[in-house]
This record gives sequence, structure tokens and C-alpha cells, in this order.
Amino acid sequence: NRENFIHLCNPHLEKMEEDILYHFALGTGTHDLPALFGDVKFVCVGGSPSRMKTFITYIADELGLGSLGSEHPNICAGTDRYAMYKVGPVLSVSHGMGIPSISIMLHELIKLLHHAKCSNVTIIRIGTSGGIGLEPGSVVITRQSVDATFKPQFEQVILGKTVIRSTDLDEQLAKELMQCSKEINEFNTVIGNTMCTLDFYEGQGRLDGAICLYTEEEKLQYLREAFDSGVRNIEMESSVFAAICNLSGVKAAVVCVTLLNRLKGDQISSSHDVLLEYQQRPQKLVGYFIKKRLGKV
Amino acid sequence: NRENFIHLCNPHLEKMEEDILYHFALGTGTHDLPALFGDVKFVCVGGSPSRMKTFITYIADELGLGSLGSEHPNICAGTDRYAMYKVGPVLSVSHGMGIPSISIMLHELIKLLHHAKCSNVTIIRIGTSGGIGLEPGSVVITRQSVDATFKPQFEQVILGKTVIRSTDLDEQLAKELMQCSKEINEFNTVIGNTMCTLDFYEGQGRLDGAICLYTEEEKLQYLREAFDSGVRNIEMESSVFAAICNLSGVKAAVVCVTLLNRLKGDQISSSHDVLLEYQQRPQKLVGYFIKKRLGKV
Repeated sequence: NRENFIHLCNPHLEKMEEDILYHFALGTGTHDLPALFGDVKFVCVGGSPSRMKTFITYIADELGLGSLGSEHPNICAGTDRYAMYKVGPVLSVSHGMGIPSISIMLHELIKLLHHAKCSNVTIIRIGTSGGIGLEPGSVVITRQSVDATFKPQFEQVILGKTVIRSTDLDEQLAKELMQCSKEINEFNTVIGNTMCTLDFYEGQGRLDGAICLYTEEEKLQYLREAFDSGVRNIEMESSVFAAICNLSGVKAAVVCVTLLNRLKGDQISSSHDVLLEYQQRPQKLVGYFIKKRLGKV
Repeated sequence: NRENFIHLCNPHLEKMEEDILYHFALGTGTHDLPALFGDVKFVCVGGSPSRMKTFITYIADELGLGSLGSEHPNICAGTDRYAMYKVGPVLSVSHGMGIPSISIMLHELIKLLHHAKCSNVTIIRIGTSGGIGLEPGSVVITRQSVDATFKPQFEQVILGKTVIRSTDLDEQLAKELMQCSKEINEFNTVIGNTMCTLDFYEGQGRLDGAICLYTEEEKLQYLREAFDSGVRNIEMESSVFAAICNLSGVKAAVVCVTLLNRLKGDQISSSHDVLLEYQQRPQKLVGYFIKKRLGKV
């Protein structure tokens, strides 16, 4: 069934003899991608390389695929742009911070999955975010990714012209993840809109950047408008993630924990241990989801 | 002289008891920033953490400040978002890929330099880029950073409204760097405009991404228009770098090597060793500049 394979929206690729996935330090001329990646069914992506390493160790344990103390090698060891780990049908890839950084990774990931002839792939971003009106530590499953003016779209400049793309995510997948959270029953999870910005400080209305030319009241008014429009958290990658997965015909979801409630402050001041536990929540939720999909729950 | 210190364009910061530089894992409450960073005069920033580690080792040797085989510790070891190294008056910091990633780093860097009471600081981005109409390996010192429509400006959304900022760089500093390159006389260096995009594939007119809906002729027309407007290379960080340094009153320059000539192709296919040598060119140029400023040439 052609529907289940990756859709490559690029007729030029067929004409290339070799494809170098530069930022992964992988390529069709140097690596047997179908042998290395052909069995991948779940791709989990997140900003921090060390967190994606933690995740692969966690999922290996959960799926009974890790031997005690075994190290999972970084498949992208030839570069320090991204880190990539694999265990069984699960691929774990870091994407750095921000839309451009995750965009480079996703272009090369989609090509990798295509070259490897993968089918029925689900991609989930597991990340951190700032919450709006939620207790810190709450997990948000994204209904729609919206821009800084609360529109569910991703705006991009291509050959000097503005192009607008849809940021829809898979509704059924979001519901399935919500059900998993109910079954785990360990932390608060909501389905809500996620605002994706190009900046962490001024772009998210923070008062604590090197530059801030607005008042606290203007900031709070903006965040309250975001809340009223359905936004429950703010991060920096979901819009292009949704747009590229959409165009490539891959089912995708965004699951982010909130590290603070932005209506109450800007600085991430919880202790290291508390933040660490928060960051494990999306991993736990997605780990449970994968186990359930594989009939191991 | 107040002029020589960092300008903080944020009245809210004075009221904060403590400032947590979250993505550096540093803070005013936990670290003595003036003692750690007060003597910094040169900050070099680049995308890759390993390249910025290589740079600090190189500059330590050049300045006679490194003891044989000594390791330079990562000052941001508490996080894997950025890496930071210091030797004498030189700070070397990684910024990841793309405008959002370098923007987070710069907000926290400017605050760090301010808290540390640094004065007379010069910041230089040393990076890689795609060239237009230049031999691969050529170095471009940026005259102006322009956007994907060739305008010398950085557009940003703040509290939902579009704000436009200047991307001017220090003209005198660019000339001084050009003079250094003439004195080294090892590789081709030009002063030209640098186009800063939010995407590596479609945003730079590449034909080899997962998505490409234009023809090769349309691509080439766009790149030729860029060349005709004065653009000599394309990268993904210079516009916000120039904008934030401008507002903070810090003299700044962008020095990037070109890894390929985009009029001849899209894939970065040179050998690992050739690319490594190319990447050392901005380091060599800026290393010479620092030595000369310190009277050690």
C-alpha cells in the first residue's frame, strides 16, 4: 500500500545518483540505509542530544531490548550537529532548538526513512515548553500548532516568496496518546494548542532577556490572549514539524511537558531534580504508547 | 566610559534579585560572573560545539596560554544546549543552527557580559556557509546581513506584532579583518553581503531537500538575483546576531567560509579532510586578528 510509505515531495531526488545527508554524516553512497533503518516504525525527536540518549536507554529497557549496561552508539557520531540512536523499531533523534534547526533534521530524516523504504512510521516530538495557565509539570499533547498571532499555520520564505503551510497534526494519534496518559495516571495531561515562536525571550513575551521594550502588563495581556485562543503551551519547533510531517504523509504528534506557568513568571527556577523528573514525563508517556502499539502492555 | 560597556535594553532586569541563564546552566545567584568572565574582550561564536572547542585550543596555543595537552573545561557542562570555553581574554561559545538557537544564546551571553561588567568587547561569528559565485574555501567577511528578499533587516514578531531591526555590522572591524587576511595571505577572502535564511533546503533554494516544488531554473534565477544584489554567501544566523549586537552596543563581525559554490550544486560533497581545512580558515583569520589586537603579531 503506497499510502503507508513516506511521500517525497521532490521530483529532483530521483535524478540524484547519491544523496549525502550532510548533517547526519550519513549517505546513500556510504551507508546501507534499508539494512540500517528499514524496520523503523517509531521516531522520537527532541531538542537535547543527552535527553534523546536517555530516551533510547529507557525504551530499550521498557521493550526488553537492552542488555544490562549496554551502550547505544550514536549513529551520527561523524558530526556534532545531531545525535541519533536506534533500538529495534524505535529511532531517537535530537534536533537542537528552534524551527531552522529541526527543519534541517526533518528534511534529512524524511529522506532517510524514504531511502530506507520504511512504512507505517509515526513521528513524535517529545520536548519541553512554557505552560500557560497550567501547573508546572503538566504535559500538553498538541491539538494544533499556532504561530505568534495564534494562527494554525507555518509561514516560510521560498525563493524570496512567502508560502503558508498547514500545521495540522493527527487527531486520532493525539487521542490515543491522551488515553495512554489516563492509563498511566501519574501526571496531569491536556490536549491543547501549542504556540510555536522563533524566539525564546521577546518572541514569547519574556521580561528577562537582554532586550525587552514592553511592560509586564502588555506581556500578560498577550499571554492571556494566547490562553483565550486555546494555547496551553509555547515552544519553538512544532509548526515546521507539523508542516513537514503533513507534506510527507507521516502521522505526527507533539508531546511537551511545561517547565513553568508563564502567567506566574519567566525564569525556569525549579531545582535540577524537579526539572529532570518533568522531562521524563513525555518520555514515559510515549514509551507507554509504543509498548501498547507493540502489544507489550 | 559608559560607551564601552554592554548596553542592556531591558529596564526589568534591574528589579530581578537573581538572573538564571538557563541555557548556559549559569546564574548570578550561583556563579561569581565578574570573577569568571570580567576580563573577556573577545567572544567567538560558532554553530558546532566541537569546532568551538577546537578553536579555544588553537587560540590558547597561539596566545601562548595553553600548557601542552591541557584540557579546556566546558563552562556550560551542566547543560548540553551550548558549550562554552575560555582562555585569557577569549571566550568561545557554540550557538547551534539557525536564528532561534543563536538568539537564545546571545540574549544570555549579553546578560552574562553585563553581569560580569565586561568592557570593550568584540564579538565575532566564525562559521560555515554556502557561497555564491566564489571558489569553495573562500572566506566571506559580512558587509551587511540581508534577509531572503535581500533586504538588510531582521524581522521579528514581538507580542504578536512585527518589529524590524537593523542588521548593520561594524564597518571598521570588517576592514581590520580584511587587512588581517591580506597579511596571512593563505586563502581568498572577500567582503560581501550575507543572506541569512530560516531554512537550509527550500529557504536557500536547494533541490535536494525532502520537499522541493520549484525547478532548477527558478532556483538559479533566485541565486543569480542574490549575487546581483551583492550577496556572496548564505547562512542561518547573521541577521539576529547583527541585530542583537547592534542594540547591545557591541562591535560585531561575521566571518564564514564557503563550503561549496551554490551556482554549481547543493550537496556538500567535498571530502572530510578538505571540509575540515576549510573550517579552520575563519579560526585562523580571527586568531590572527586577536593576536594582532593584543600586540602579539
